[in-house]
Formats: sequence, structure tokens, C-alpha cells
Amino acid sequence: MQESIMGIMHMALDQARQAGDRGEIPVGAIIADAQGQIIAAAGNQVEALCDASAHAEMLVMRAACLAQGQKFLENCDLYVTLEPCPMCAGAIALHRLRRVIFAAYDPKSGGVEHGPRIFDQPTCHHRPEIIGGVEEQAAASLLTGFFQRLRS
Amino acid sequence: MQESIMGIMHMALDQARQAGDRGEIPVGAIIADAQGQIIAAAGNQVEALCDASAHAEMLVMRAACLAQGQKFLENCDLYVTLEPCPMCAGAIALHRLRRVIFAAYDPKSGGVEHGPRIFDQPTCHHRPEIIGGVEEQAAASLLTGFFQRLRS
Repeated sequence: MQESIMGIMHMALDQARQAGDRGEIPVGAIIADAQGQIIAAAGNQVEALCDASAHAEMLVMRAACLAQGQKFLENCDLYVTLEPCPMCAGAIALHRLRRVIFAAYDPKSGGVEHGPRIFDQPTCHHRPEIIGGVEEQAAASLLTGFFQRLRS
Repeated sequence: MQESIMGIMHMALDQARQAGDRGEIPVGAIIADAQGQIIAAAGNQVEALCDASAHAEMLVMRAACLAQGQKFLENCDLYVTLEPCPMCAGAIALHRLRRVIFAAYDPKSGGVEHGPRIFDQPTCHHRPEIIGGVEEQAAASLLTGFFQRLRS
């Protein structure tokens, strides 16, 4: 089934919720092809995998490479509920994704619209189209709620 | 056995050579603890794993997390034969490594001394000690030789 941008972001939000239910920081990600067909889905698994780099984006890109048998994801779009960090933005450039659609902005740790702004660097070899703020409130509420529960 | 900085870099160069022999860009990496005990070793596996993010540094950090059952690598040092790219530098910050020792500089794609200079960003939450240029010539020769053979 072909999905709309909003439809796919809602799937990413579901992945984020499931991650939160497992005690992970609630971030979720989806890879879809240019026709909106879903290729892979993942939530944050830093705690489950005991690996600080097991962000939803890294896991979903790896899963999509495996699903497609390709090291690049050139005709694919990444949907993620939080602005990617510098590591994930670097991986997005390496994987040559077509588009990145994200929900909440991350002024403290983001690497796309904040911090190193990876895709604006002259040495960045691939710059995807970026669409930020899609379902920003829903994603931000999930994160705020998670950290409030942690502190209470 | 405790190893010296040069001794461990030579192990990383061995990993790089083995990667080159498998048809991978010859980059190798080692994680050692603060006493110089080896925790994990890896070479680049982008082709073997069909994954543009399967850099030696990412693989060796994941292996070290698995070996130690810890999501952070706080008392560990990363040895790598090429200046880490922005993705790998981001992962190094997330893993909170104590030190990064690298061989060849990478003006085109590096993310430590070039490009986004990840650890110099105000939003970078962890800056390891950096030692660059250790066995630079040996590592650079491996890379140059590999790309010359590819083009011939």
C-alpha cells in the first residue's frame, strides 16, 4: 500500500511509542521508497542493545540495506520523529537518502538544523531534501512525557 | 598483554590490510581499555554487509559494547587508521570514548580535524582526547595503493 507523508510519520510515531514503552527514549523511524512503500521500521534500542549508537535511524537504515541488498538507499526517504543527531545525519549522507522528513527539532543535540548542520558542510558529499516539523507537537509530547516520568 | 600506542596502531593497520584484501576500502580499528588491553578489532565491511555505514569504527564500537555489556565506552580508546568521518565522530561522542588515536588525516571526508569538526561544536556533549597522525604514512600508503589498483 502506498502511504502519505503524514501516514508514514504516524507509523514512525508508533515506533517511538513502542520504544518508550520498552524504557527507551521514544524515537521512531521508517524507511519508505519513493512510491511510499514501507521498507523498514525501527525504534530506538540503545538500552536493549547496550549500544549508545543504536538510534532508530541507524537501525532502520541498516534494516533497509539488508532488505534491499544494497549499501546505498538512493531512492528512499527516512521518516524520523526527532531531528537526527550528527552521527545519524552523517549516516544519512553516506547512505545517499533522497529525503529526510523529521518531526521535532532538537536544538541541544540535533545535527541537521542545529550544531554541525552536517548537510550544509562543504565536505558533505550528499545533501537530501529536508522536511522538518511534520507532526512536531506529537513527537515532542512523547519525549517531554518520557523525561517527566523519568524525573518523577 | 598490555600494548603500546604504536603496537595497537599496528594491529589496526593489520585490520586495514585484511579489509583491503577482502575488497573493502582499507581502514581498520581497535578498541583498547585504559590499560592497553584489546577489547575489540574490526575492519571496514561496507561491501560485505552491504551497508554504507559499516565503517570499521562503528563495527568496533558495537563489538566493544557487546563485549563489555555497556552502552558507553568511557574508559576506552579507539585506534583507527583514518580520521573518523562525521558519522563515526558523532558515534565516538555518544559512546564517550576517552581517547581517539588515528593515523591518516582525511581532508575530503574527515569529521574531526576537517569538515564539521564534530568535537569542536558547542552542542557536542563529549570531547575525547585526540591524537592524530600516528603511523600516518603507513595508513595513507595502504589507501593510496588500494585506490591505484582500483583505477588500473
